[in-house]
Amino acid sequence: MADKRPHPRGRRPAGENTRAALLDAARVEFTERGFDGATVRAIAQRAGVDAAMVNHWFGGKDGLFVAALEIPVDPTEILSRILDGDPEQTAERILHTFLSVWDANGGGALAALVRSVASHEEAARLMREFLGRVIFGRIVTAVAPDQPKLRAALCGTQMAGLAMVRYVIRLEPLASADPHTVVAAIAPNLQRYLTGVL
Amino acid sequence: MADKRPHPRGRRPAGENTRAALLDAARVEFTERGFDGATVRAIAQRAGVDAAMVNHWFGGKDGLFVAALEIPVDPTEILSRILDGDPEQTAERILHTFLSVWDANGGGALAALVRSVASHEEAARLMREFLGRVIFGRIVTAVAPDQPKLRAALCGTQMAGLAMVRYVIRLEPLASADPHTVVAAIAPNLQRYLTGVL
Repeated sequence: MADKRPHPRGRRPAGENTRAALLDAARVEFTERGFDGATVRAIAQRAGVDAAMVNHWFGGKDGLFVAALEIPVDPTEILSRILDGDPEQTAERILHTFLSVWDANGGGALAALVRSVASHEEAARLMREFLGRVIFGRIVTAVAPDQPKLRAALCGTQMAGLAMVRYVIRLEPLASADPHTVVAAIAPNLQRYLTGVL
Repeated sequence: MADKRPHPRGRRPAGENTRAALLDAARVEFTERGFDGATVRAIAQRAGVDAAMVNHWFGGKDGLFVAALEIPVDPTEILSRILDGDPEQTAERILHTFLSVWDANGGGALAALVRSVASHEEAARLMREFLGRVIFGRIVTAVAPDQPKLRAALCGTQMAGLAMVRYVIRLEPLASADPHTVVAAIAPNLQRYLTGVL
């Protein structure tokens, strides 16, 4: 798979190495310190590059945060994985993708993200933009018969709530349920928000 | 209405005044400082009573926190408001009650609560217990045909997600939608978690 990508890991040009190193460092710093606590200086230092590279590659801390949200997969890949196929099974694909991404590290990265969003207005604003425009904006617009903004926000309630209950509050039996159980239980509800009668 | 309560506000006995003053003070301190930041000493001082009264009335800071969660209405009253009536409209009653309680102050108190839960393991544990045993344990047990624990956790995802999107992230159009629009959009999903086929 790596061979098909334009710049496989072993031979990325220097600029792309810098970008990747900054993203890796940002994930660690945002996870450990939250949005406000993580500084551009500390992230650049951890990445071993000059702090000016953050502006160069991401336009600043906000852009780096949004880019770092997209762990650990390519958003274009996620979008195509979700949008390709029967529109009536979009919810199942969203949930499978969400769980495969976030279950990977026990949900630690997502729990840290929810913490940042809950504690910091700036992080909440970024998450609002990210959810509203990028993820749900594109997915919902592609499948919704009407009211795409309301549907996007409703999908947001289900996905944010799943994140809270499975990874932050860790309420059983959902916290340790296997992915197929979670998808079977939640997909019909999420699908109604996407394409059902509201 | 106050006349029907055993101790209307104007002539509560001293002990109940102490308890009410502690709850009022706790709500302010937890809202301003989060769970860890609010100290028993500061809460008692704000209430104008001895710190030992926190143990006396609530068994400690945890108990005071759980009691303070129940703002601004009596949980017994909430439970009967939700449980009385057609079981197939339980979700509508939960949502109307939830919105009437939390919309009251622009969602500030709930946003503060979500922040505490997201940031502090102790608050997350308390919320887990509160959601699991008290609210959903009683409501879901009363109406669920099967799998009450899974249904309770699923209801938790919808309600926690609504809190996040409406009061913390404030994603439009849900953030400023009128309560009837919110209930109409979400009730069928919540009702499926309570009584539908999973």
